[in-house]
Amino acid sequence: MKAAIFVEPNRIVLDDKKIPDVGPLDALIRVTTTTICGTDVHILKGEYPVARGLTIGHEPVGVIEKLGSAVQGYTEGQRVIAGAITPSGYSNACLCGCHSQDGAGTRHGFRPMGGWRFGNTIDGAQAEYLLVPDAMTNLAPIPDALSDEQVLMCPDIMSTGFSGAESGKVRIGDVVAVFAQGPIGLCATAGARLMGATTIIAVDSIPSRMEIAKRMGADHVVDFSKVDPVEEIMRLTDGRGVDVAIEALGRQQTFEAALRVLRPGGTLSSLGVYSEDLSIPLGPFLAGLGDHTIVTSLCPGGKERMRRLMDVIASSRLDTSPLVTHRFRLDDIEAAYDLFANQRDGVLKVAITP
Amino acid sequence: MKAAIFVEPNRIVLDDKKIPDVGPLDALIRVTTTTICGTDVHILKGEYPVARGLTIGHEPVGVIEKLGSAVQGYTEGQRVIAGAITPSGYSNACLCGCHSQDGAGTRHGFRPMGGWRFGNTIDGAQAEYLLVPDAMTNLAPIPDALSDEQVLMCPDIMSTGFSGAESGKVRIGDVVAVFAQGPIGLCATAGARLMGATTIIAVDSIPSRMEIAKRMGADHVVDFSKVDPVEEIMRLTDGRGVDVAIEALGRQQTFEAALRVLRPGGTLSSLGVYSEDLSIPLGPFLAGLGDHTIVTSLCPGGKERMRRLMDVIASSRLDTSPLVTHRFRLDDIEAAYDLFANQRDGVLKVAITP
Amino acid sequence: MKAAIFVEPNRIVLDDKKIPDVGPLDALIRVTTTTICGTDVHILKGEYPVARGLTIGHEPVGVIEKLGSAVQGYTEGQRVIAGAITPSGYSNACLCGCHSQDGAGTRHGFRPMGGWRFGNTIDGAQAEYLLVPDAMTNLAPIPDALSDEQVLMCPDIMSTGFSGAESGKVRIGDVVAVFAQGPIGLCATAGARLMGATTIIAVDSIPSRMEIAKRMGADHVVDFSKVDPVEEIMRLTDGRGVDVAIEALGRQQTFEAALRVLRPGGTLSSLGVYSEDLSIPLGPFLAGLGDHTIVTSLCPGGKERMRRLMDVIASSRLDTSPLVTHRFRLDDIEAAYDLFANQRDGVLKVAITP
Amino acid sequence: MKAAIFVEPNRIVLDDKKIPDVGPLDALIRVTTTTICGTDVHILKGEYPVARGLTIGHEPVGVIEKLGSAVQGYTEGQRVIAGAITPSGYSNACLCGCHSQDGAGTRHGFRPMGGWRFGNTIDGAQAEYLLVPDAMTNLAPIPDALSDEQVLMCPDIMSTGFSGAESGKVRIGDVVAVFAQGPIGLCATAGARLMGATTIIAVDSIPSRMEIAKRMGADHVVDFSKVDPVEEIMRLTDGRGVDVAIEALGRQQTFEAALRVLRPGGTLSSLGVYSEDLSIPLGPFLAGLGDHTIVTSLCPGGKERMRRLMDVIASSRLDTSPLVTHRFRLDDIEAAYDLFANQRDGVLKVAITP
Repeated sequence: MKAAIFVEPNRIVLDDKKIPDVGPLDALIRVTTTTICGTDVHILKGEYPVARGLTIGHEPVGVIEKLGSAVQGYTEGQRVIAGAITPSGYSNACLCGCHSQDGAGTRHGFRPMGGWRFGNTIDGAQAEYLLVPDAMTNLAPIPDALSDEQVLMCPDIMSTGFSGAESGKVRIGDVVAVFAQGPIGLCATAGARLMGATTIIAVDSIPSRMEIAKRMGADHVVDFSKVDPVEEIMRLTDGRGVDVAIEALGRQQTFEAALRVLRPGGTLSSLGVYSEDLSIPLGPFLAGLGDHTIVTSLCPGGKERMRRLMDVIASSRLDTSPLVTHRFRLDDIEAAYDLFANQRDGVLKVAITP
Repeated sequence: MKAAIFVEPNRIVLDDKKIPDVGPLDALIRVTTTTICGTDVHILKGEYPVARGLTIGHEPVGVIEKLGSAVQGYTEGQRVIAGAITPSGYSNACLCGCHSQDGAGTRHGFRPMGGWRFGNTIDGAQAEYLLVPDAMTNLAPIPDALSDEQVLMCPDIMSTGFSGAESGKVRIGDVVAVFAQGPIGLCATAGARLMGATTIIAVDSIPSRMEIAKRMGADHVVDFSKVDPVEEIMRLTDGRGVDVAIEALGRQQTFEAALRVLRPGGTLSSLGVYSEDLSIPLGPFLAGLGDHTIVTSLCPGGKERMRRLMDVIASSRLDTSPLVTHRFRLDDIEAAYDLFANQRDGVLKVAITP
Repeated sequence: MKAAIFVEPNRIVLDDKKIPDVGPLDALIRVTTTTICGTDVHILKGEYPVARGLTIGHEPVGVIEKLGSAVQGYTEGQRVIAGAITPSGYSNACLCGCHSQDGAGTRHGFRPMGGWRFGNTIDGAQAEYLLVPDAMTNLAPIPDALSDEQVLMCPDIMSTGFSGAESGKVRIGDVVAVFAQGPIGLCATAGARLMGATTIIAVDSIPSRMEIAKRMGADHVVDFSKVDPVEEIMRLTDGRGVDVAIEALGRQQTFEAALRVLRPGGTLSSLGVYSEDLSIPLGPFLAGLGDHTIVTSLCPGGKERMRRLMDVIASSRLDTSPLVTHRFRLDDIEAAYDLFANQRDGVLKVAITP
Repeated sequence: MKAAIFVEPNRIVLDDKKIPDVGPLDALIRVTTTTICGTDVHILKGEYPVARGLTIGHEPVGVIEKLGSAVQGYTEGQRVIAGAITPSGYSNACLCGCHSQDGAGTRHGFRPMGGWRFGNTIDGAQAEYLLVPDAMTNLAPIPDALSDEQVLMCPDIMSTGFSGAESGKVRIGDVVAVFAQGPIGLCATAGARLMGATTIIAVDSIPSRMEIAKRMGADHVVDFSKVDPVEEIMRLTDGRGVDVAIEALGRQQTFEAALRVLRPGGTLSSLGVYSEDLSIPLGPFLAGLGDHTIVTSLCPGGKERMRRLMDVIASSRLDTSPLVTHRFRLDDIEAAYDLFANQRDGVLKVAITP
């Protein structure tokens, strides 16, 4: 089968690979649609290390090709997705609700980011076939009425973006700021809207993203290239600050701005993947006396999460189709990486079809 | 009346002051016992700015001398305490449960640390008399069976220390580390014990504090002057790390150590008052993908909080008397500051009696 | 001034009353719009006892006429609302977040339904003037852009209805059933929608209410006069049952139906005012082994709650104007009671203007 | 192997049975100690229906005899326990934290009490060997320092009892009443103590149980055969009522008493298994306006739960040994049933050793 393989920094190529064997708890999926994530670009650039020869990608939509001998409750030919994070379900981490830090097989049951396996510790989704581990925990059937592209954001983008609002515990009547309106930030904006925030302030500078932010639920869009976003948010909130600030980029600047606009007692919900030490400025942190909460979230996975997210789409609460701006065949995935990594042509997300 | 007044950095003196007038919502308390807090030392040293001429202190035990015209439900002569934090009860912050960030009278109802008034924005408790604002929100009657010294830790030390465990959401079976065993850290240790933690690791280097830590509920005491506390805690937890790490000092080193011993998905509960920007190291922070929570707490106040803390004492769940190591008359408060600020003679807390 | 007074069962009349004196913590409001609640009809019928001579009504919109001597942060002439529930802010109940059970002045600080004062224990809002106690806790300024009728549902209907969804802890992706689509049930439907439920099933039998239910956010409307609602909901959920069932009527039949459609581990959120003992059937209760939660809510009050609800209106998240079906002058309030109590002419809520 | 088998109502006998085959996800345990539960007596009496021929019992302590082909992370010969509830870990119920209502294999992933399999839907623990399904989710290694009897209460009694306090969300300073001091009620008392309740009132009438209740943490013990427990609890709480009332019997009388002593805004946490419809009296229920919560809990299971409970024992936070009052060999289990079912000789729990 064909698969997009990490060869070395700055080199992901499409190559041939053996179709994997199916263990008793696994399922083999024939991938029908997948996509490229910002994290994959970090891998491409060598900023996040993975084993050479690994198949990249963690956002699969597909059809069950073969079920492991112990897998029950599914049929071959069924359309399914699996989350970017594929927890075992049985580790101590999973059993206390911390599925993304799944440490199945470890002594303690916790492993940092242990739930993230596709394209990280095992072969991923940018291929013709994908082996899904712990299939009964992870395979979520796709409702007939939904197309592949309609559910393509569920495995990672929606799940992560929504978790920004969920970990922030957004309540009816909250004021929420979302820093950066890439695909995940846009879904954080949508998540805040879905949970009842009444003033949502989205920050970005790219016109097309600012436009989509409004469609996703933002009440105000702040262009940080034109105004100081902290000042502008304080102005918009009449000096009060926000109840929840969501960071969706992974930079010191946005993290710090999120803290600066946070009201005392508010929550900074961080989604970004950082690449250097962060600094917490003393003043906005109120010297540690502000009753602040800072919470980070790794994309929630598992079939129940996927089921709920697909329900959001099926019930027309959110339409993520504006996020898919470009389409490629798997054969052309190298061109897709080139476009996506360089953020050309207003790309948000690409759909890749084997 | 006599009162300990901030004159200028490095100078707090006992001086004469007029007994304050009592507004309709106030109560005048004749102070019978009070104490000095680490925060007062910050004020003394000029590290935390207050107005010159302000009476210092925020930990009052006393007797009601006079009630405001609109105050109901109390009688003059009643023994009472008030918390270090005296929320109004009616601001928007209070009405959403964020009493310590009370912004009564502001446009938005939130003010950073706004609930802290005694010895900060209004005259404090190191005096013969103390005016308590919003008396009906703040005066908590002392059960007859409890002495002044028995409840002296309730207004700040117990309330803050316990909030470290509470904000950390300690659960039955948790492993908890508490960094620094000063009075607040000792009460955090006690709070973690009260909430059901089954492995409590206290970190300090002063033998007397390490000894009291055991009496307060620590299962293990780590002497950071002899071993690396991060390594030792990882060893004690067999590599797993802790569910909740409580920072009770206010330094980069303890904050960072708390993060380094935290398991994925765990909570860092910070009580310290910091004096410079903090750094979050990328590795232990798992680049923002560890499902970590960092939460800060300002001492919870209000009469219901005080009632509950006094119940802890009355029911013999905790004995804070080992924390009171020295006693002074108000006349000698300058000597008390000298002892306490220089941490001489194994001092933990002093009791001051006018 | 004119006021609607409870004389005896089945007799509420418009009569003259003295304009009340204003205590130091009070505010006198000139009522500009008010309404009649189902609870008022219970009072009218003698089913809920109040003192003879009491002015009825607990849903005020008005203008500040006079402020008490100790009230700060408001100006006379300001447009305001106050919640149906007017907590003191300072009782032990309030200080632990249980404002509706406010026991200000009691020994323990808790009093059953103690926060409900207007038209219950003190004179209410169906009058030309209204005395608001604990004004700083309760007066919420109305944004200029909002009309009286736009905010008329905030004091009780929206606050109660939304609390049905909030106490049920509705999450993104939940399936929610709402039993009865009177004004409160309609707002519960809207609240579930605002919090991210993806399948909302509304139950009623009156065509006009069923129609508005759809506008408020229901995905399915079940007519209990035509189908068995339990069977229909189990059919719609493919046998799974609902995550949250909201009872908004106050009858055994709806309470029981709510339990029968609840999935294991789900929450029954009850808003109704019951008039007789309830029975919990053993089977649907799973003999007490279903991990079920049953939670009741009394209308949340206080100015912060009102501010948030008005924000929901101001941000166009919800339009409650379809709920106001009839308008009366205060002079004609007896006719309004006649219409409303007999549920004639498709009445949902009436607007009363002095 | 020998096994205690349900033959027909009022007849459980020790008989021979084939040692079960081990599937890929299973583990075969050689039972070293087990016990009889009140639920088993319901089965014996025919009050709870199970299949004829089923092996009874759900509280195993044992040694791994054989591991399924796909089971990793354990070794044969290891000492382990499994919870009374053995969730799969992978159902939708499990993935949203509702493990006891596990519906593995069902269309929706929820099944009422579906996590309870031992001695209910599959063969149980009162036998020489026990097949544990989903072994990686359920097997918890026993620390070397703990004896069989020390951990014998973990699978059900402690887990259920503690969940009464946990579901009640007991906080530091709470007043808690626990109705009935059988083994589960005693552990609820201990759980309330562990979580920081400062006034714990235990209700029973059997002197030996009342005595143990004090050792488990009760501050007051009310003998319902001598005083009206509702009146006595209201007296002890000075008219305030309790924050949390735990029902640990499963009768209308205790359920109702729990509601009658509950303060407004309090939580009734129900553990009992009821055998008939319950009635909620209107008055104490405040007509549905008391902001009350009623929550039921089925014994939490899974290896992480067991690990935490054994930590409670290992850290000397609780000693459950007073609960084991009698010891029998498996050969004499019919005598054990006779003693236990008739509650003779002050029996609390029996230890059965094959």
